[in-house]
Amino acid sequence: MDNKWSTMVMIALGRSDGLRFRDLRATVEGISAKVLTETLRHLERHGLVARHEYAEMPPRVEYELTELGRTLHPPLQTLGIWAAEHAAQVLAAREAYDSARR
Amino acid sequence: MDNKWSTMVMIALGRSDGLRFRDLRATVEGISAKVLTETLRHLERHGLVARHEYAEMPPRVEYELTELGRTLHPPLQTLGIWAAEHAAQVLAAREAYDSARR
Repeated sequence: MDNKWSTMVMIALGRSDGLRFRDLRATVEGISAKVLTETLRHLERHGLVARHEYAEMPPRVEYELTELGRTLHPPLQTLGIWAAEHAAQVLAAREAYDSARR
Repeated sequence: MDNKWSTMVMIALGRSDGLRFRDLRATVEGISAKVLTETLRHLERHGLVARHEYAEMPPRVEYELTELGRTLHPPLQTLGIWAAEHAAQVLAAREAYDSARR
């Protein structure tokens, strides 16, 4: 599981008992519908997210973490907190690295 | 920081006081010289790894985690342990997902 979006989707689902596609998209800042669709399929394929279809009119679909997915949530949340706390330092380092090579 | 190799390189460096390129490559199973070069540059650019050149004959270059990099090591190690402990479940889920769609 290799990308930022997978991490952000799992953190969002980890804080819920299940989310619809549009609620998930509203929660994960900046994700496009296409990338969210691919990310959910990637997470479902790796057994981390489950997709539930409710036979209602109109039909309702919700996504939630599987048991396996829930075991991954704590380390991902720690990583998310690290990223939030250190984003400025990482961006500053990147700016310094790039300007030294211009 | 978006990929498996960055995580594995940081975990390897986190267990050392600095490694040469060839030692790092021997430690991170399956990584090619090209990908290791790109990964080290990516980590250096983001302020997580430092590159040290020693003016010896022949010249010696070592890589080590920066202070910022060391703060990221614990959550990455937890993720690495999760991956090792759950790899079989993830692969089984993927196999089941794929065969259901063949």
